[in-house]
Amino acid sequence: MSYYQRHIFFCLNQRPNGEACCADRGAQRAFDHCKSRVKAEGLAGPGKVRVNKAGCLDRCAAGPVAVVYPEGVWYTYVDEHDIDEIVERHLKHGEVVERLLVPPHVGR
Amino acid sequence: MSYYQRHIFFCLNQRPNGEACCADRGAQRAFDHCKSRVKAEGLAGPGKVRVNKAGCLDRCAAGPVAVVYPEGVWYTYVDEHDIDEIVERHLKHGEVVERLLVPPHVGR
Repeated sequence: MSYYQRHIFFCLNQRPNGEACCADRGAQRAFDHCKSRVKAEGLAGPGKVRVNKAGCLDRCAAGPVAVVYPEGVWYTYVDEHDIDEIVERHLKHGEVVERLLVPPHVGR
Repeated sequence: MSYYQRHIFFCLNQRPNGEACCADRGAQRAFDHCKSRVKAEGLAGPGKVRVNKAGCLDRCAAGPVAVVYPEGVWYTYVDEHDIDEIVERHLKHGEVVERLLVPPHVGR
């Protein structure tokens, strides 16, 4: 098994030139919320879940985005309710949250 | 298949208090080198390879570290020669570079 059972990376990229970026769409707040929920649920740590900051994941057109490995499942989200659902269903129980999936071909 | 065939994340975490961190061990330079090699080899992009910055991956005792998903293979490295080997063998050909693996139980 991988060191973490599930490893979620949030794009927190901030573009300086006014272009659309995850940082302008609530990514830091979502990351903080996810990290805090995972910790509160006792899911954090080796063999369990890790919530990580990442630079640009290059799927900006779907932003804000996060990706869960090793599954390689990509999510977009709007608010903390969406993050709660990702934590509860995917990070805790391994179910994919279909309604939040990034469409397959959306890239930068 | 995942959006990226292989997605490597480099810990670039900088600790402000003098504690050991990947940033103090050449992580930025390794990241830059990896990104540039992957691009030069024509490996970069959807369906291929993505080289990403990450915050603390919490395996500091093995730092500097990087992780390749979806395989969940963790590496440490010393210099650009090591990065070249990860790019050529793992990111290009899917072979694990055994000599650079992080031992299974090394954490923070």
